[in-house]
Amino acid sequence: MTETLPVTERTRLRRGHKRGDFKRETINAILDAMPLCHIGYVLDGSPLVMPTFQWREGNRVYWHASSAGRGIRSAENQEVCMTVSVLDGLVLARSAMHHSANFRSVMIFGKPTKITDAEEKEQKLINLIEALYPGRNDFLRPMTEQENKATAVLSLPIDEASAKIRSGDPVDDDEDYALPIWAGVVPIKMQLLPAQPDPRNLDGVEIPDHIKNIKLG
Amino acid sequence: MTETLPVTERTRLRRGHKRGDFKRETINAILDAMPLCHIGYVLDGSPLVMPTFQWREGNRVYWHASSAGRGIRSAENQEVCMTVSVLDGLVLARSAMHHSANFRSVMIFGKPTKITDAEEKEQKLINLIEALYPGRNDFLRPMTEQENKATAVLSLPIDEASAKIRSGDPVDDDEDYALPIWAGVVPIKMQLLPAQPDPRNLDGVEIPDHIKNIKLG
Repeated sequence: MTETLPVTERTRLRRGHKRGDFKRETINAILDAMPLCHIGYVLDGSPLVMPTFQWREGNRVYWHASSAGRGIRSAENQEVCMTVSVLDGLVLARSAMHHSANFRSVMIFGKPTKITDAEEKEQKLINLIEALYPGRNDFLRPMTEQENKATAVLSLPIDEASAKIRSGDPVDDDEDYALPIWAGVVPIKMQLLPAQPDPRNLDGVEIPDHIKNIKLG
Repeated sequence: MTETLPVTERTRLRRGHKRGDFKRETINAILDAMPLCHIGYVLDGSPLVMPTFQWREGNRVYWHASSAGRGIRSAENQEVCMTVSVLDGLVLARSAMHHSANFRSVMIFGKPTKITDAEEKEQKLINLIEALYPGRNDFLRPMTEQENKATAVLSLPIDEASAKIRSGDPVDDDEDYALPIWAGVVPIKMQLLPAQPDPRNLDGVEIPDHIKNIKLG
């Protein structure tokens, strides 16, 4: 049976929480579907929302950034909120009020820690590549010590988190169903177009399979 | 000539700000391309990042929420950060370090104000529908007073804002171009699938043109 996370003061906040879902299974599936996340910090008392890529390992999410960046200093051991959103469709109703969007989203709250051990950090950066492109690390040149030092990896437990999902048809007021107004859903998908090789690729270098199997959204 | 916004302590923060762009024209184009935004508030000292839709009118962005929601109370006249991100591609380099993403993003900082006048609010909600589906309001039943009251509209000037854009091929270390590693870009597009009519649509109600012309991303 899948674990259900406890509802806290922060995770109950979401509007329309009848659509909330606190199952680890639901939360993990959304995190795994969409690397793009938005991380909120508080910097000098004011909020800052940074887009970056996250990846999940078990009950933790990770992201990386420049070691020199102020974002890292604002995040380490400070409260953050990571939000992942997948837009699945536009919902057109019979009244302006009931227009909506189909989506899957996750919010995670907590204090991230920085990975300090260089070897562990290297493994995490390998895992980031693997999460997006399984098998690609075998093709790449090894990471250098300098690259390792230049990169910070942060890690956040998925302890205080919630998912929120809307799917399906518009939901209109009962009496509005009698109106001759077109209602429905325009589904949205993240489409991956054919890979564009770098013009500087060496002759004869073939596109590897891990690039053909990327899934997103 | 397009106006360039001043660089502030907050807008200079973005990592790799060589990719930063402070022109209104650039910022507006990104806002207009992607309604999905992530708004960061500070609530009881801790950050909260909420996904919602934004729309732009001139030099301001707007969003709406439930009047009863705590999100509104956390945002009104408080510092927020609105971030809009469009993921344009995955960038695969010859080293793990230089993997990246092509994207367009905007961050806007400021204190939003709430629209208090009911008529002005109604017009703004009409504008939200128009921004997504030009012409659709003519088809909808009029908004009720109760719906107007239940909805709050917030407005933020685009005064302290920056765009950040990455596009094009991977950028590898000079010596790595000699390696027989496939590098390139996997472009990403938001794909709108054919509209799915609500099964409860009345017989003979045709799909209107404004649904065929939606553009996203």
